[in-house]
Amino acid sequence: MSEKHSKVSRRDLLKSATLAGVGLAGLSGPSLGGSNSEPQSRARTVLGMKFQPLQTVRLAVVGCGARGSGMLSEFLAVDGVQITAVCDIVKEKVDQARLVVERAGQKTPATFSNGERDFERLCRRDDIDFVYIATPWDWHVPMALAAMNNGKHAGLEVPAAISVAECWQLVETSEKTRRHCVIMENCCYGYNEMLVLNMVRAGQFGDLLHGEAAYLHDLRSLLFSDSSEGLWRRFPHMTRDGNLYPTHGLGPVAHYLNIHRGDRFDYLVSMSSPQLGLDQWRLGNVAKDSPKWKEKYKCGDVNTSLIKTTRGRTIMLQHNVTSARPYDRLNSLQGTKGIFQDYPPRIFFDGQEGGEKWATIDKFKSQYEDALWKNIGELARRRGGHGGMDFVMCYRLIQCMREGLAPDMDVYDAAAWSVPGPLSEMSVAQGSAPVKFPDFTRGHWRDARAQQS
Amino acid sequence: MSEKHSKVSRRDLLKSATLAGVGLAGLSGPSLGGSNSEPQSRARTVLGMKFQPLQTVRLAVVGCGARGSGMLSEFLAVDGVQITAVCDIVKEKVDQARLVVERAGQKTPATFSNGERDFERLCRRDDIDFVYIATPWDWHVPMALAAMNNGKHAGLEVPAAISVAECWQLVETSEKTRRHCVIMENCCYGYNEMLVLNMVRAGQFGDLLHGEAAYLHDLRSLLFSDSSEGLWRRFPHMTRDGNLYPTHGLGPVAHYLNIHRGDRFDYLVSMSSPQLGLDQWRLGNVAKDSPKWKEKYKCGDVNTSLIKTTRGRTIMLQHNVTSARPYDRLNSLQGTKGIFQDYPPRIFFDGQEGGEKWATIDKFKSQYEDALWKNIGELARRRGGHGGMDFVMCYRLIQCMREGLAPDMDVYDAAAWSVPGPLSEMSVAQGSAPVKFPDFTRGHWRDARAQQS
Repeated sequence: MSEKHSKVSRRDLLKSATLAGVGLAGLSGPSLGGSNSEPQSRARTVLGMKFQPLQTVRLAVVGCGARGSGMLSEFLAVDGVQITAVCDIVKEKVDQARLVVERAGQKTPATFSNGERDFERLCRRDDIDFVYIATPWDWHVPMALAAMNNGKHAGLEVPAAISVAECWQLVETSEKTRRHCVIMENCCYGYNEMLVLNMVRAGQFGDLLHGEAAYLHDLRSLLFSDSSEGLWRRFPHMTRDGNLYPTHGLGPVAHYLNIHRGDRFDYLVSMSSPQLGLDQWRLGNVAKDSPKWKEKYKCGDVNTSLIKTTRGRTIMLQHNVTSARPYDRLNSLQGTKGIFQDYPPRIFFDGQEGGEKWATIDKFKSQYEDALWKNIGELARRRGGHGGMDFVMCYRLIQCMREGLAPDMDVYDAAAWSVPGPLSEMSVAQGSAPVKFPDFTRGHWRDARAQQS
Repeated sequence: MSEKHSKVSRRDLLKSATLAGVGLAGLSGPSLGGSNSEPQSRARTVLGMKFQPLQTVRLAVVGCGARGSGMLSEFLAVDGVQITAVCDIVKEKVDQARLVVERAGQKTPATFSNGERDFERLCRRDDIDFVYIATPWDWHVPMALAAMNNGKHAGLEVPAAISVAECWQLVETSEKTRRHCVIMENCCYGYNEMLVLNMVRAGQFGDLLHGEAAYLHDLRSLLFSDSSEGLWRRFPHMTRDGNLYPTHGLGPVAHYLNIHRGDRFDYLVSMSSPQLGLDQWRLGNVAKDSPKWKEKYKCGDVNTSLIKTTRGRTIMLQHNVTSARPYDRLNSLQGTKGIFQDYPPRIFFDGQEGGEKWATIDKFKSQYEDALWKNIGELARRRGGHGGMDFVMCYRLIQCMREGLAPDMDVYDAAAWSVPGPLSEMSVAQGSAPVKFPDFTRGHWRDARAQQS
């Protein structure tokens, strides 16, 4: 896995270098050029494209590790889902997943574990509507392309892609095949996130000005473990310096700001602190004869980016997975009439009772709690996956597919929320110079879209 | 005052424009050139220069508005201070200040209120050691120059200066006259700030990575008032777009990061949200026939900057005085071993009892409370100026002057902490392009300096 990863990363670094020479907006600011990496093809947009309604959603799971097996259980708990295939390079994980499906009372799914390209065989089957992909990051795009090119919708764990070119591949393929590529950003379904989104849409915050989003999660132990994500998730820290994992914080803030529903990300600047976290953790926790001592880490511990939208709004986006600190996604929003900050959730509106002090969000729950949480929140909380947001996401996705709605999160969201990864690398490498976002929607971000319920 | 302000601002805008053409590092990142605006003169540094010990500090107050009169009372409460002169363009304010001095049992001070240049006459007196200046921002530098050129030390309210050229004027004049120009950044003397600084120096945070600093304070009502700061502080919002008020958050974080004691600010990028706060406040609160309706505001409500230091550390710096929100200076610090965040104060260190959760700072107070707060904290709290920090600052300044120590905050700090104002304007105007900090110390930031007590 390590070797493959290195190869992919070298290829992507070359791409980044080329793009940096053409696409950087540092010289004359954001007025410079468009997205130079935009492909020539011009398929019809899939913005707002509705699923064909399905009685039963036949679902395949590719990647049955910690995340994939957890999500398998969530999907099995949703009515109208049939798991028809499971895939992993580790046979034991596939066997375990098969057992879980059988124990849920479903037919035995087809299993795929014959090497790292066996997912291609899975994608050629004709009993699959949706391929959910929870594999190491550099496998996401090849797998999603295989799914869509074989007529299946794809659901990608985060980040959806790790290079600008990969983002375009997802967009191009989704448009060409008329299949959706859904980014499975569970944090968009968090209780607080959906509450705040409903308050935004009701105009509570007035005009929006600024959001803050982050993934601040001490993963040092996980990154150095000899199993699960420790087998691959440390490697990007050797080849990349930027925000490796932007979507958990950015997805919900993008929803608040109506990104691709009247606005879009325009450009970003990014800055990294020194890298010391992994070095110091290794010093205290890794045996002196471990091959891990040959590794050289380059990803700054604290990466901070600023994103400007075409409507002039700003987002502060952070990443830190290698420092001692409590978990935080920031999840903040400043409007002209008030402000919400998370961790812990607190809110203030102009003229609020009790003066200029934070209040809890409790009194807004009766009015603004999302209908999904009202209806299935108790079950979601009991299941517990990330506080219930995993189940709410799965439930909602299946609802969209069964009722023939457009998905809440499409390929343009997948691309725009993931691309701060490579864009932040470019900016950091160029001394924080501004870098333009490609317009993955090719202008359709301006289109009005009805809110769904 | 309005007219004068506009004039100064136009002059400074021209300066900024020139500098932007030369000094911007956007093209090739931070490796590009040095500080092109550095003057040619090469006087000896005043870094670490000690005050001549004085039995009694003879102090003049220039500007007897809300801030100046408040600080006058603080200085009067410090042993060894004699107020020898007071100055304001409003005679009533001078009379009131004279009364306050007399009531404190001191000799009647000389009074100056004969027009806006009367401070020059004050500066020529021979019974003044230190001129404390609390006037509108664009008067700070002319007044400090007059004080130093007449052999007096100067103390400047914040920001010390509003243009790069002004920052250099302060540095040049302090070096040439061998007088100190102290930035009166009271937040450096806050209880939490001093506690955290002592913990930093004891190595509690390990290696430092990232700090966060801000001035987030809803001033909409004050900015539109027809007295006090409402008479001038709204005007910069018409001519500037950037961080108008960087030092309250940045001063303490600069101390944590040992700026000018082994590190310095290298470059910044800055981004502003739309301006809507003043427009919307005016709509609801200003009579339709007010001349304020002719004003056009351009300063984005939320300005966010990222600062890189020469040692690679990063600072996130924010400014927002025109939105509905509770007060916050962020005041945060991430090191390899732990993190502090303020508002409310909370802390986490690797391996902390109770797991990965914030703890209060209470258990660190016995060991790390600053000696100043131990000794005079009770009196400071009773006096109350900004929670006591005003008195602690005045006490400490007078202590340094009486004991012949170097000041905690000198002209290089005044320049470096204030210059993010104009630098953020340049970056915002250039689409967030990186802008280099001048090295106001001309290389002496590397010099070791003994910590004082």
